[in-house]
Amino acid sequence: MERYFSDSIQHAVDELSKLPGIGKKSAQRIVFFLLKIPKPNVVELADSLVDIKDKSKFCSVCYNITDTDPCPICSSGRRDQSTICVVEEANDVIALEKTGEYRGLFHVLGGALSPLDGIGPDELRVKELMTRLKEDVQEVIIATNPNTEGEATAIYLAKLIQPLNIKITRIARGIPVGIDIEHADEITLSRAIEGRVTF
Amino acid sequence: MERYFSDSIQHAVDELSKLPGIGKKSAQRIVFFLLKIPKPNVVELADSLVDIKDKSKFCSVCYNITDTDPCPICSSGRRDQSTICVVEEANDVIALEKTGEYRGLFHVLGGALSPLDGIGPDELRVKELMTRLKEDVQEVIIATNPNTEGEATAIYLAKLIQPLNIKITRIARGIPVGIDIEHADEITLSRAIEGRVTF
Repeated sequence: MERYFSDSIQHAVDELSKLPGIGKKSAQRIVFFLLKIPKPNVVELADSLVDIKDKSKFCSVCYNITDTDPCPICSSGRRDQSTICVVEEANDVIALEKTGEYRGLFHVLGGALSPLDGIGPDELRVKELMTRLKEDVQEVIIATNPNTEGEATAIYLAKLIQPLNIKITRIARGIPVGIDIEHADEITLSRAIEGRVTF
Repeated sequence: MERYFSDSIQHAVDELSKLPGIGKKSAQRIVFFLLKIPKPNVVELADSLVDIKDKSKFCSVCYNITDTDPCPICSSGRRDQSTICVVEEANDVIALEKTGEYRGLFHVLGGALSPLDGIGPDELRVKELMTRLKEDVQEVIIATNPNTEGEATAIYLAKLIQPLNIKITRIARGIPVGIDIEHADEITLSRAIEGRVTF
């Protein structure tokens, strides 16, 4: 393939294209944008990216990403210590926090079971979860994603936790708010009927 | 607004959100991706962005972006020195180079006339273009964008160049390849009829 960019631009385009959701075209657009803005702004962007590697660490309790250990959620006295919500990734914590609904603690697995990708229980923070459950935990809410891997992980965890005599719940599946019934896919729709509630 | 991220993550999300085509959600996704990959990879990305500011400069002839001055196109002995294609931005050079059709030189204006944004001929590299036209140039192809600013710039340049007795052409407007006539907008369609060619 012929090269149309100078070396430095090509390199930046290649590097940006490795990021999720950024293709060659978007990478080019970003590079030409960076060429136009003052250098200190580019340096600040670049430094902020390296900074997250230097400053962010996993919370030693819940494995959420944090600048302080334990993380603000685990070290808050205002959270319900008896409920742990198990999620796949740290961004799920943020999504759930934004709802403002949940006042318990979290546990970040670091992914979902996926035998084809070589991800078994040992690759996830399952052992660490089980250790936490020996403490005064009343309920575990399993909030893994509603896909094959997430469901398999939920079933696996539920079986593992059952003997401990702790209440185990799974987040509800149903029709997303704002979506017409006619536009919901059939699996979601059948789950919504299954999970119907009286009112 | 409540803060859900640690300081370093929030800062990186804010910085990434300033880039074109990247919103808060994409920025979050990128940050969580960066948190997962090894630090040297993040450093390489960050360095590549600063590098374009350190190494890239404008070609002193055509104002294309380049690591070497003059740029590879201007210094190539295999380009037709008698034709100059005038474009708004350096990425237009790349788009045209990719076609492999054009073998002449370029001139990058650095934008288009836009009185409302305070961009007049002095803000663009118009004087520099006129200086180049005193040399042995036979044809100027005006390839500014087919929008209001681009058209105004094309008309302005055409008037300016006319007295020099140089052939002035404008890139053809018409129906994009692969688009059905019924889906083309009416302005494009009327331009396509205007610019019809015999075959």
